[in-house]
Amino acid sequence: MKYCSECGGDIELRIPSGDDRDRYTCIKCDHIHYVNPRVIVGCLPVFDDRVLLCKRAIEPRYGLWTLPAGFMENGETTGEGAARETWEEARARVSNLQLYRVFDVPYISQVYMFYLCTLDDGAYGVGPESLETALYTEDEIPWDDIAFPVVRKTLESYFADRRRDEYPVAVEAVRFRRPPTSN
Amino acid sequence: MKYCSECGGDIELRIPSGDDRDRYTCIKCDHIHYVNPRVIVGCLPVFDDRVLLCKRAIEPRYGLWTLPAGFMENGETTGEGAARETWEEARARVSNLQLYRVFDVPYISQVYMFYLCTLDDGAYGVGPESLETALYTEDEIPWDDIAFPVVRKTLESYFADRRRDEYPVAVEAVRFRRPPTSN
Repeated sequence: MKYCSECGGDIELRIPSGDDRDRYTCIKCDHIHYVNPRVIVGCLPVFDDRVLLCKRAIEPRYGLWTLPAGFMENGETTGEGAARETWEEARARVSNLQLYRVFDVPYISQVYMFYLCTLDDGAYGVGPESLETALYTEDEIPWDDIAFPVVRKTLESYFADRRRDEYPVAVEAVRFRRPPTSN
Repeated sequence: MKYCSECGGDIELRIPSGDDRDRYTCIKCDHIHYVNPRVIVGCLPVFDDRVLLCKRAIEPRYGLWTLPAGFMENGETTGEGAARETWEEARARVSNLQLYRVFDVPYISQVYMFYLCTLDDGAYGVGPESLETALYTEDEIPWDDIAFPVVRKTLESYFADRRRDEYPVAVEAVRFRRPPTSN
């Protein structure tokens, strides 16, 4: 951040009065520009014993498999955002959303919220951010080609919980960046 | 938002290619400035049969009672943020944090996450954003002077859940702005 979005003045990092950390502050109009974590909302759509996955058509992790998810937008609820992303990425409608997994990823200042839900009519398609989409059983999931650790963890815990038929909400922190890979 | 924080150019609202909604976009460098919901993290600190409340020393709702909570900061987890706010507002340390209540408040693009937790040693003080703080039993809570609907709902559900000794996570949307009051 270099310029004030309110007056165009120069920005400096400064600890405002009564605060305890640096904030982007305008040296001309004194406006403080707070920067806060972002929320990523997604779904784990289930149909019978299969889950809906999307093969990414965008970076990062192009070509790898993920759950439908994306940045929460202003004016929506977390559940509405999760359902919207599922439509956008997999042309699928979902019902019975229940919060299932929350991941804190502090090193990139993100909070993931995945909703367990049912895939309406088993119907889905392919949105513009996906190369393909598919319903997979646990054994069919391309476990070596999952895009993100939070997606792998959500899928693993789902199939474990499914054996007990209990789906408690869990919060987990992902602390460390994994090493970059060639794909 | 009037000026680009990257180059100082003028901002216009425009639907970017491949997007479906207006974004603040720089007409000079084409940078897209996304605006996303903010997360408010807080605690419901319990000590025996009492909960810790703070009387607000700041607007909005100056002089009304609330749970310790505030905007999540970059680089922290939701639980760390909730504990930090509890220290800042009530000089209290907390343990055994478990996610308890999530509130979507889409009309102001906020997500509240309250953690149920235990107040260490029953010790607390008064932070700079509080006029006073206090441990209250259900009967002692100043129910007519609660600052925010999400705080009231969290307290009400806590005492109901306490009778069952079960504290399931719940997500709820707060859809409507309540009418302004004189205090």
